[in-house]
Amino acid sequence: MSAFDKYKLSSMDLPKDLKKISAKEASELCSEIREILIDTVSKTGGHLASNLGTVELTMAIHRVFDSPKDKIVWDVGHQAYTHKLLTGRLDSFDTLRQDNGLSGFCRPNESIHDAFISGHSSTAVSAALGIACAMKASNDKHHAIAVVGDGAATGGLFFEGLNNAGKSETNIIVIMNCNEMSISKNVGAVAKYLSQLRTKDSYHKTKSVVERALDKTPVVGKPIKKTIRSSKNAFKDILLHSTMFEDFGFEFVGPLDGHNLAELEKGLSAAKAMNCPVFVHVNTIKGKGYPPAEKNPGEFHGVGSFEIKTGNPDVVTTDSYSSVFGLELTELAKKNKRIVAMTAAMKYATGLDTFAKTFPDRFYDVGIAEQHAVTFSGGLASMGVIPVFAVYSSFLQRAYDQIIHDLSITNYHVVLGIDRAGIVGSDGETHQGIFDVGLLTSIPNTSIYSPSCYDELKQCLKRAIENDKGIVAVRYPRGSQKQTFGDVSSDYYLESCGADTLIVTYGRLCSNAARAKGILNNKDIKCDILKLVKIYPISDEILDIISKYKKVIFFEESYIRGGIGEKYSSVCPNVIPVAITGFVRHAPVDVLLDENGLSAEKMAMKTEDIINAT
Amino acid sequence: MSAFDKYKLSSMDLPKDLKKISAKEASELCSEIREILIDTVSKTGGHLASNLGTVELTMAIHRVFDSPKDKIVWDVGHQAYTHKLLTGRLDSFDTLRQDNGLSGFCRPNESIHDAFISGHSSTAVSAALGIACAMKASNDKHHAIAVVGDGAATGGLFFEGLNNAGKSETNIIVIMNCNEMSISKNVGAVAKYLSQLRTKDSYHKTKSVVERALDKTPVVGKPIKKTIRSSKNAFKDILLHSTMFEDFGFEFVGPLDGHNLAELEKGLSAAKAMNCPVFVHVNTIKGKGYPPAEKNPGEFHGVGSFEIKTGNPDVVTTDSYSSVFGLELTELAKKNKRIVAMTAAMKYATGLDTFAKTFPDRFYDVGIAEQHAVTFSGGLASMGVIPVFAVYSSFLQRAYDQIIHDLSITNYHVVLGIDRAGIVGSDGETHQGIFDVGLLTSIPNTSIYSPSCYDELKQCLKRAIENDKGIVAVRYPRGSQKQTFGDVSSDYYLESCGADTLIVTYGRLCSNAARAKGILNNKDIKCDILKLVKIYPISDEILDIISKYKKVIFFEESYIRGGIGEKYSSVCPNVIPVAITGFVRHAPVDVLLDENGLSAEKMAMKTEDIINAT
Repeated sequence: MSAFDKYKLSSMDLPKDLKKISAKEASELCSEIREILIDTVSKTGGHLASNLGTVELTMAIHRVFDSPKDKIVWDVGHQAYTHKLLTGRLDSFDTLRQDNGLSGFCRPNESIHDAFISGHSSTAVSAALGIACAMKASNDKHHAIAVVGDGAATGGLFFEGLNNAGKSETNIIVIMNCNEMSISKNVGAVAKYLSQLRTKDSYHKTKSVVERALDKTPVVGKPIKKTIRSSKNAFKDILLHSTMFEDFGFEFVGPLDGHNLAELEKGLSAAKAMNCPVFVHVNTIKGKGYPPAEKNPGEFHGVGSFEIKTGNPDVVTTDSYSSVFGLELTELAKKNKRIVAMTAAMKYATGLDTFAKTFPDRFYDVGIAEQHAVTFSGGLASMGVIPVFAVYSSFLQRAYDQIIHDLSITNYHVVLGIDRAGIVGSDGETHQGIFDVGLLTSIPNTSIYSPSCYDELKQCLKRAIENDKGIVAVRYPRGSQKQTFGDVSSDYYLESCGADTLIVTYGRLCSNAARAKGILNNKDIKCDILKLVKIYPISDEILDIISKYKKVIFFEESYIRGGIGEKYSSVCPNVIPVAITGFVRHAPVDVLLDENGLSAEKMAMKTEDIINAT
Repeated sequence: MSAFDKYKLSSMDLPKDLKKISAKEASELCSEIREILIDTVSKTGGHLASNLGTVELTMAIHRVFDSPKDKIVWDVGHQAYTHKLLTGRLDSFDTLRQDNGLSGFCRPNESIHDAFISGHSSTAVSAALGIACAMKASNDKHHAIAVVGDGAATGGLFFEGLNNAGKSETNIIVIMNCNEMSISKNVGAVAKYLSQLRTKDSYHKTKSVVERALDKTPVVGKPIKKTIRSSKNAFKDILLHSTMFEDFGFEFVGPLDGHNLAELEKGLSAAKAMNCPVFVHVNTIKGKGYPPAEKNPGEFHGVGSFEIKTGNPDVVTTDSYSSVFGLELTELAKKNKRIVAMTAAMKYATGLDTFAKTFPDRFYDVGIAEQHAVTFSGGLASMGVIPVFAVYSSFLQRAYDQIIHDLSITNYHVVLGIDRAGIVGSDGETHQGIFDVGLLTSIPNTSIYSPSCYDELKQCLKRAIENDKGIVAVRYPRGSQKQTFGDVSSDYYLESCGADTLIVTYGRLCSNAARAKGILNNKDIKCDILKLVKIYPISDEILDIISKYKKVIFFEESYIRGGIGEKYSSVCPNVIPVAITGFVRHAPVDVLLDENGLSAEKMAMKTEDIINAT
C-alpha cells in the first residue's frame, strides 16, 4: 500500500475525472493537493511557494482544457507540481527530484502531459506558439496554453514570443500567473506595470462603464467627433487602449482571482471560446495555504527538506561558495569604487544580498535578462566601471552572443562570477553547469579560473578584478567546500612523487583526485596530481609539466567537447581527457559524479586502466 | 586635394561647428550629405536606404547634444554613416568598408564619437543604459542616447533593455527611428503597433484635447467620478494611458517628422531637458531623397556598388549559396509537407523569398528574434513538423541557450541553414561567421554539414531533412560558388596520390586546397587532399584515413578554439590545425583568407613548412 492511498486523488483516472467532479469536490481536491505538496516537499525539497500558488489555477486548466490534446507548456516548470499530481503522477510523487524519480520540472519523456521541456525562463510562449502553429496547419482546433510567471516577463524571449503570438491567428492562450515575485523579486518597469494591473479589480467592467458613459452622453459627442476627425483613430486608441498585451495583439481576460476556482474556470472558458490569441492575467499568492511560505515566499522558493510545523529548514547552509563569493566581492568593493555587482534575478542565490545592502547604488538586479546584463556590463565597462556579473552557469548560456559582440570584440574588462558550475544535482538536465567552459573558450579574449576551495575562490576573484584584462570568469560549484587540496595562491599546484602518470583536474574534483591517488597508492600504483586554478588560456608552463609524463589523464566536470582536456590533448598527445559526454540527469551530485566517471573510485579505476593499457 | 574638398563639410570643425550654423545652413548641409552618401555608396557598396533616412535625425542629434560627452549608441550601426560624416570622418569616407578603411558599422577604436560597438540588432538600449548608469554614478549630467530602428523592436534584448531603462532614473534617451521596415519587413504585433503609432500625427495634442474636453464637460463628471471611486486608478490609466513605452516607464515624445529638422531639434531639446528616461518616436522615410531607394528601400538596404542615375546594381548576382539553398528547400517542401521554413527578418538575404511565395502558410518570418525562432522550432518539432531555420552564422549566436535547452535535451529534429558561414568580408568583425562550429560542437546531439559547392549544398540539405536526426546544421558561405572539388555525393572525398602528407579541409577552402596542391606539385612536393562534407560528429572512418598519414594539416575557416581541427588533433597526434585565431576585421574575403593563412598560397607555404620541419 502506497503512502498516497489515503488520498482521493489516488482513486481517480486523471486528468479526465477532473471534469466529472463537482466544483465543491474540485475545491476539496485542492486542499488535498496542498497537503500532499507540503508533506512531500518537506521531505524531498523542491519549489514550494510557487506550487502552492498555482493549485487552483492548475485545477481550473485541467477542468476547462483537455490534456494531452490541448497542450500545456509550463514556463520554468517549478510551478508544475500540481500538474504532475493531476496527470497521474501521485504514485511516484514522493520520488520528486530523487534519483530515478520525478523531475522537478517538466519533461516530455516523463509524461505525455508535459508538452515541452522546462527549466529556463521565458520559453513557454515561443514553444506553445510552435505547437499552436502546428495545430493550425493540421486543422486541429485544440489549444496551446503557455503558463508563465510574472518573473518571466523580464526575459526578452518572452517578448519575442508575444510579438509573434499576438498576430498568429492561432489558438494560443498565454496565462500570466502574477504573484509579484520572481526568484528574488521582480525588477524593472514591466513588474511595476503588472503590479498596477494586478490592483485593478474590475478592469473590463471599468472600461465598459467609461465606454457606455460616453456613448450615452451626447454632450461630449462634439469634441470627440472633432478629435476623431483631426486624428483618425487616435482617440479610439486612447480611450479603448488598455493593456500592453493588447498592444501585442492579444485579447485580454483578467485579472482573475487565482484562488477562486469558479472565477478561474469562467475566465479560462471564455478564453477558450475566443479561438484567437488570448492573454489571461491571473493573480495568485505565492505560498498560498501554508502560513510560513505565504509569510516569506522567498525562503520557500527553492528549499531543501524542512520541518512542516515551523517551516524551519532541516539543515541551514551556513556556508557556500555563493556566500563566500558575495562577501569577498563586498570586501573588494570597499577598496575599489569602480566595482559594481550584477545579478539576473538571483540576488540571494548568488550570495549578493550583503553587497546589495552595503552598496545599493552599485548593485543591479536586471531581472531574468542575462543578455541585457552582459550588454549593460559592456556599457558600464566602456566608462571604466568594473562590472561583476554573478550568474548560474546554465543561465549564462543565454548571453553567448552578447559576450562575443558586446564584450569580446572591444575587449572590455568584465568579471563573470559563474555560480553552479559543474553538476548541480537534483535540478537536472536544464540546470547542470557543464557548458560554460566550452562556451567561454570558444570566444576570444577570455580567461577562466576554477577554484577548488573558498580561499582559492577569494584569491581568484581578487586577481580577476585587479590583475586581469578582458572577460574573466571565476567559476565555482553549487554548495559548500568539502576539502582543500594543496597550495591556494598560484595558477596551479603540482603534487609530485616522481610518478610517470599524472592526473590533471580542477575545481572540486581536486579532492576526488587526492582520494583517487590514495586508492591507487594502496594498490602500490603511483601517480602525481596537477591542480589547475587558472584553467584557460592554455599555458606553456602547464604544457611543459604535462609533456614530461608518460600518461596524463585529464578529469573534467564539464562537457567533453570544447573542454580544457580536449584542448590540452590537441597539443599534447599523451593527454587523455575524461569528461562528461552528454546531458546529465537529476540525482544527487555524488551519484552523478560517479556515473560520469568523476568520483574518486572511478578516477582511480580509469587511471589504473590507462596505466595497464600498454 | 581630396575628392571631398568641394564640400562645405570639409572645412568644418566637427561636430562642434554644427551648433554654430543656422537652421538653413544645417538644412543645406543635409542635402550635401545625401549627395556624399549616394556618391560614395554607389562606389563602395553598403547600407544606403537606412542612412538616407537618418540624415536630418543625425544632424539634429549633433546640434542638440554634445558628443563625445553625450554618448550616442547606434543600434546595428548601418544607419550611422551621417554620424561618421558629422564627426570628422569625411576625409576617409571613400574608404568605407574597404580594406583598412572605415567600418560600415560603429567602432570605438575608429572614433571617440562611436560610443559603443554595433553590428547586431537590439543592443543599443542596454549598452546606453550601462553608460547612463556610469554617468549617474560619477554625477555626470550628460546623456546616453540609443538610436534604434523599429526592426530592433522585434528583438527580446531591446525589451530587456527597456525594462531596466524605464525605471533607471538616468539620463537615457531612446530614439526610435520608425521607417516601417527592418531588413526584409517588420513582422509581428509590435510592428503593427508602431505603425499605428506612426500614423498619429498629433498624439500629444490629441490626448490633451480629450482631457480638456472631459475636464470642461461637467455632464460626464458623474459617471467618471463613480468609475474612479469604484476602480481606483483604472479610469485614469485608461484615459491617460498612451503608449507601450510609457508602460515601460519612459516619458514619451513624438511622433516627430524625421525629415523636419526644426521639429526634430525641438523634440530632442525637450527630451534632453526632462533629465529622466525618455522615449522619442521619430518617423523617417527610408531612402529619403534618392528616388530609386525611396521606391524600393529593400533593394537598397545593403547594396553592392550601383549606377547612380538608375539605381541599377553594377553586378547582378544571379547565383549564390543562399538562392540555391532557398530553391532546393522549396523543391524538397513540395514533396514533404512536414517541412516549414523560418527566417529572422532575412527573407530575401537567406534566399527564402521563393519558398515564402510558394508556401505562405509554411513560412515564418519571426522578426529579429533568433532566440524565439529556435524555441518556436522546438514547439513545431514536438508536433512532428520539420522546421528549417535559415540564419546568418553570426546571428545564430543569439540562440545558443535555446539550442541546448529547447532542442538538444529533447533531441528534436530541426535543420539550421547557416548562411554567411566563414569570412563574410566587408561587414567585418561583428558579422564574420567564425563561431558557429565551436558553438554547435559544444552542444550534444548536433551534426554539421559544410558543403563546398552548390550540388553538395543540395545533397546535404536533403540528407539533413530526410536522413538525419537531432539538430542538423548545413553551413555555407556568403556569395557564389567558385570551383567544385571532387565527388559531391558522400560524407567526404579523398584525392590521393600516395603522399605521406594530407591536407584536410571543408567548405569553400577545398578549392584553395586544390590550388595549394598545384603550387606544391610545381615544387615537386606531393600531398593528398581530404574534403570533409559532414564535418561533425568526428568520424571513425575519417580517423582511419587520417591516422595513416605522417603529417596532416587541417585548414579551417573558423575560430580555432572549438574547431573541427582541434577535435581531430585531440585524438590524432599527427593532425596540425590551422584556423582563425581571433576576430577578423573588414576587408575583401580573399585578403582576409590570405591574412589568416587560408589562401591557396599560404596553405601551400604552411604545408611546405610543416613537411620541412622534421
